[in-house]
Amino acid sequence: MIVVLDSKYKEKSLERVKNRIGDAGFTCKVTEGAEKTIVVVVGDNVKIDKSLFSSIDGVMNIISVSDKKNLAHKKSLDDKTVIKLENGITIGDGSQTLIAGPCSIESERQMEETATFLSSLGIKVLRGGAFKPRSSPYSFQGLEEEGLKIMRKVANKFNMASVSEAIDEDSLKLTEKYCDIIQIGARNMSNFSLLKKAGKTKKPILLKRGMNATTDDLLSSAEYILFNGNRNVILCERGIRVSSGVKDQFVIDFNGVDELQSKTHLPVIIDPSHVAKFRDRVFRLALASYSYGSDGMIIEVHPDPQSALSDGAQSLDFELFGKLFPLLTKIGEIL
Amino acid sequence: MIVVLDSKYKEKSLERVKNRIGDAGFTCKVTEGAEKTIVVVVGDNVKIDKSLFSSIDGVMNIISVSDKKNLAHKKSLDDKTVIKLENGITIGDGSQTLIAGPCSIESERQMEETATFLSSLGIKVLRGGAFKPRSSPYSFQGLEEEGLKIMRKVANKFNMASVSEAIDEDSLKLTEKYCDIIQIGARNMSNFSLLKKAGKTKKPILLKRGMNATTDDLLSSAEYILFNGNRNVILCERGIRVSSGVKDQFVIDFNGVDELQSKTHLPVIIDPSHVAKFRDRVFRLALASYSYGSDGMIIEVHPDPQSALSDGAQSLDFELFGKLFPLLTKIGEIL
Amino acid sequence: MIVVLDSKYKEKSLERVKNRIGDAGFTCKVTEGAEKTIVVVVGDNVKIDKSLFSSIDGVMNIISVSDKKNLAHKKSLDDKTVIKLENGITIGDGSQTLIAGPCSIESERQMEETATFLSSLGIKVLRGGAFKPRSSPYSFQGLEEEGLKIMRKVANKFNMASVSEAIDEDSLKLTEKYCDIIQIGARNMSNFSLLKKAGKTKKPILLKRGMNATTDDLLSSAEYILFNGNRNVILCERGIRVSSGVKDQFVIDFNGVDELQSKTHLPVIIDPSHVAKFRDRVFRLALASYSYGSDGMIIEVHPDPQSALSDGAQSLDFELFGKLFPLLTKIGEIL
Amino acid sequence: MIVVLDSKYKEKSLERVKNRIGDAGFTCKVTEGAEKTIVVVVGDNVKIDKSLFSSIDGVMNIISVSDKKNLAHKKSLDDKTVIKLENGITIGDGSQTLIAGPCSIESERQMEETATFLSSLGIKVLRGGAFKPRSSPYSFQGLEEEGLKIMRKVANKFNMASVSEAIDEDSLKLTEKYCDIIQIGARNMSNFSLLKKAGKTKKPILLKRGMNATTDDLLSSAEYILFNGNRNVILCERGIRVSSGVKDQFVIDFNGVDELQSKTHLPVIIDPSHVAKFRDRVFRLALASYSYGSDGMIIEVHPDPQSALSDGAQSLDFELFGKLFPLLTKIGEIL
Repeated sequence: MIVVLDSKYKEKSLERVKNRIGDAGFTCKVTEGAEKTIVVVVGDNVKIDKSLFSSIDGVMNIISVSDKKNLAHKKSLDDKTVIKLENGITIGDGSQTLIAGPCSIESERQMEETATFLSSLGIKVLRGGAFKPRSSPYSFQGLEEEGLKIMRKVANKFNMASVSEAIDEDSLKLTEKYCDIIQIGARNMSNFSLLKKAGKTKKPILLKRGMNATTDDLLSSAEYILFNGNRNVILCERGIRVSSGVKDQFVIDFNGVDELQSKTHLPVIIDPSHVAKFRDRVFRLALASYSYGSDGMIIEVHPDPQSALSDGAQSLDFELFGKLFPLLTKIGEIL
Repeated sequence: MIVVLDSKYKEKSLERVKNRIGDAGFTCKVTEGAEKTIVVVVGDNVKIDKSLFSSIDGVMNIISVSDKKNLAHKKSLDDKTVIKLENGITIGDGSQTLIAGPCSIESERQMEETATFLSSLGIKVLRGGAFKPRSSPYSFQGLEEEGLKIMRKVANKFNMASVSEAIDEDSLKLTEKYCDIIQIGARNMSNFSLLKKAGKTKKPILLKRGMNATTDDLLSSAEYILFNGNRNVILCERGIRVSSGVKDQFVIDFNGVDELQSKTHLPVIIDPSHVAKFRDRVFRLALASYSYGSDGMIIEVHPDPQSALSDGAQSLDFELFGKLFPLLTKIGEIL
Repeated sequence: MIVVLDSKYKEKSLERVKNRIGDAGFTCKVTEGAEKTIVVVVGDNVKIDKSLFSSIDGVMNIISVSDKKNLAHKKSLDDKTVIKLENGITIGDGSQTLIAGPCSIESERQMEETATFLSSLGIKVLRGGAFKPRSSPYSFQGLEEEGLKIMRKVANKFNMASVSEAIDEDSLKLTEKYCDIIQIGARNMSNFSLLKKAGKTKKPILLKRGMNATTDDLLSSAEYILFNGNRNVILCERGIRVSSGVKDQFVIDFNGVDELQSKTHLPVIIDPSHVAKFRDRVFRLALASYSYGSDGMIIEVHPDPQSALSDGAQSLDFELFGKLFPLLTKIGEIL
Repeated sequence: MIVVLDSKYKEKSLERVKNRIGDAGFTCKVTEGAEKTIVVVVGDNVKIDKSLFSSIDGVMNIISVSDKKNLAHKKSLDDKTVIKLENGITIGDGSQTLIAGPCSIESERQMEETATFLSSLGIKVLRGGAFKPRSSPYSFQGLEEEGLKIMRKVANKFNMASVSEAIDEDSLKLTEKYCDIIQIGARNMSNFSLLKKAGKTKKPILLKRGMNATTDDLLSSAEYILFNGNRNVILCERGIRVSSGVKDQFVIDFNGVDELQSKTHLPVIIDPSHVAKFRDRVFRLALASYSYGSDGMIIEVHPDPQSALSDGAQSLDFELFGKLFPLLTKIGEIL
């Protein structure tokens, strides 16, 4: 931790800063300049509340250098968590794992058609939503437990693993019961109460980055899960908000993927569907994401997108996904 | 609802658009231009899923004109909800109600000192947090039920109403039991599961606007509470994120306050503390907020901010609040 | 300057960092931690290019502590520039100076009516645009030199000072010739070529903050003007972009005003008109801005806003400004 | 153009809206609802100033449907401008053109080494900056005319075309004289005065999208150039600002590339260097950009990035570019 002090205030404030560091059980080194005085607190795991300093006159900046996020961070350059699912699939082993399926679980027929198609390509992880967090109370809210039962049945038939989103304590329990991976959506990335409970489940958590969260915010949210006992967390970049003034416009933060990969041992995947919004764009963005490289992708695929109950426009149909898949394979061979 | 169609695609797409409007039970009027064709769906409560159109070739834009948010919106120009609390205080009656108190409830002595001071100025609503949503699992998380009991005891002694934040189902039940107003924080504004449950409580809800939410997003979240049965919602502008690239920099959206006041009958208040971050700035921003005008303000006040367990730098001490209060009173007389 | 190094890379990179600091003629102090190693370069005016470090393996962060902006920054706590205009008006002397007038100069009659009205209230600085930076080439672009002549004539008649915007080298020369203050608009805040030329003029510069600029960006732009010889710069907060996804939505950054006031000796004023967009909101925001306190305000006033060639909706008419002015005066007396 | 009116105000405002439309020489169709009344102005090239309506009571929204940007927009689905350079290279012909070279022109030797290397790979367009728009007046500002002469000499020797940035009227003249393509940088995208002058030059313009500009803003800026007579404009996506609160963090807006391609006949290229900031990230982002597909890329390459006078960290060295180039070629063959 570094405290930057305006040298004009040095006389009255430097002692105060040093005392608070001492009270907290740490020592410091001071570098004085004519305009700014820099106080470096010695040690990595400095746990001093910043607000102890921010109220001192002349304190211009307080910089956390070594923060407290320990469990999510790499311990060495090649530290890497590999998630193993019951059907034998692994995530984080160096290859790119594809997760696909509809936005919402709508019927057994819809899920069975999807699983038949995906299995034929060798895809082994099925997605589908049963609890939909919708911004209006009047929109379709999902099939709930009934939907989860359908997906479990279909996943079993095709030896696929399954992913579904939990949005509160009740849905968390049900998702843990029926699915192989529990998704926490972007809107709940800072729902710390839900994160704590997710940390107490036994299933891997797919944690999506909030639309306005930094990569450090995402790691801090992952820390809640890890700290509460669940060491299997998959991070997912799904697009962050841009500031050019277009409502609900998001962009995949590829730099953020690289940043996460250099900071954490947890697997990082990309969701190109929600940002792209239209299936032609999903197709192109999936090519770009795969070429960038990560631990996998989660993509919305639907047997008949035009009749989908949610996210129809951004769901790939079988024809388009059937065209995308071999291109991804070829790119994978080149890189 | 308006669908804008690229006239180049008119032949193949206009029929399709019209059919979907018809299928949904509505009629439309078409205005053709050389470049763009505009289809207006007749009626106010048009409930057609936008994605039915977004997948049609040539559809350039789908504009919701009359959306489905009914309960939160004004029915007439002077439609106004007034919230009446048990201690006789009203919010939304045309005057500005002040809510004040510490960020966190820390001890009975701290709350009693605060209530003594605020009561002496005639302030009748006390705030204090018992469940703190912190971005790190290692930070102070609040006194929980113990804190709520302290605040209840102190509030009763001074005939004050009390406000505290709920962050999940458990804390919602406790806050409903011990407090007069339940706060839903900015981070939970899109926690629709929690909003539904808040809609089933019997206490007024103080709903804070999310840092990236539009005023329409806030009204949509309020709709969840209203629709589930609780008609007493107070909206709170607490600052939105800016895009000039400074982490955790927020700005009070005064235009947003005006927008909300023209759209909804619900009371709208302002929180100048979280945005300002430093007490000198809270002081100035409170003057500006009061001069702008709303149904009230919620301000952090602490007997000894330098020793506060959270938000110390932005809490006003008694001296500064004692200087602010008469200025607000005088401004109130002028306007 | 502080360089933060990942201790995993210490062996190979620390020497390199130290050598580059030495090559640049500076010394440093090193504080080693198990995870991060902090190198503080000694001295205030450290002029080492950051990119010399960013390409070294393991460098995690490079923090400029003492930057090179010298002329715009305060030298002492009460350092303050006061701008004196020819008609005797001063800006930055502790009072709030009001600047008012139409968005565009449209005719002599329009300017004369405006000046008559404003003078009757005691306002001594007149604004009006002659060169309009419009986002479409097909919009009204201003009366150019003809407009400036009109404003000069009217300003002289009423002993008012005048402000108009320059957008390139030609208009800069004309504005310098005819006006008392040259405005550089928000869109040109990073037009460094224009800033250099403005630094060579003899008239005070009113420099508006860019919609996405930080306060440090604004000071850096001011530095261009000061460094080129013109020491009379007035800074203007006119609203920054927010990130809630509404196109062209801006918010006055009151904290930014406070930040600027604590960092620079230059006067800082507020423009409430462009952010508010509608005259009722301008009215309310002007009250808030005046209560917050700065060195003044610049407000759009027009004799007949409904027929204005630009910014009609946000221009106050004489009736509304006549209602606002005495309220500002009373607030000024209270604070 | 569509005007949305609150039906509560219909009596007093609808006539007024209709009169103004009539006064402007247009007709309209009205669709009345219980809450909102929609007025559609008939015709594509509706040129009515929005502010004529925004000041009418009850007007809730004014939507431009058919705007005035004509020259930049596609006239048919396969409308496409192909730019032909003197050395035979074309941009916009369906292939991806690579433009490469250092951020700044530093010396003849540096440019000659770069051109030798790039030519050996078959790259035919060389970039290099001679006028650097730097946010601080104390940073390296470029070799100016001397630099342009060096680049011209080197480009001629290798039969390469050249690109360099103009930042004001003087540098525009010099760049037109010495270069094959004139770049207008992101910071000057809204410098309409410069755009007008660029429209009067005879060389193709490479126009970069501003960091906060929408794709419509970019097309509107291109319109300034086209309208003033220069029909050869290349658009460049270089990254837009995100709102997660990290200063100077930008993200390539791939959706924006797709949007531009569907709206305009002008070529669209991508700059992966400025967003990525570090050469390892540039490498990955270039792969993603190439896989996404556009009319080309502009990439920073330097013989010795560690000694570069600007943008060293984000410049690829010959080794890394030599590794990237064959991967791009292979991806090109697959897609």
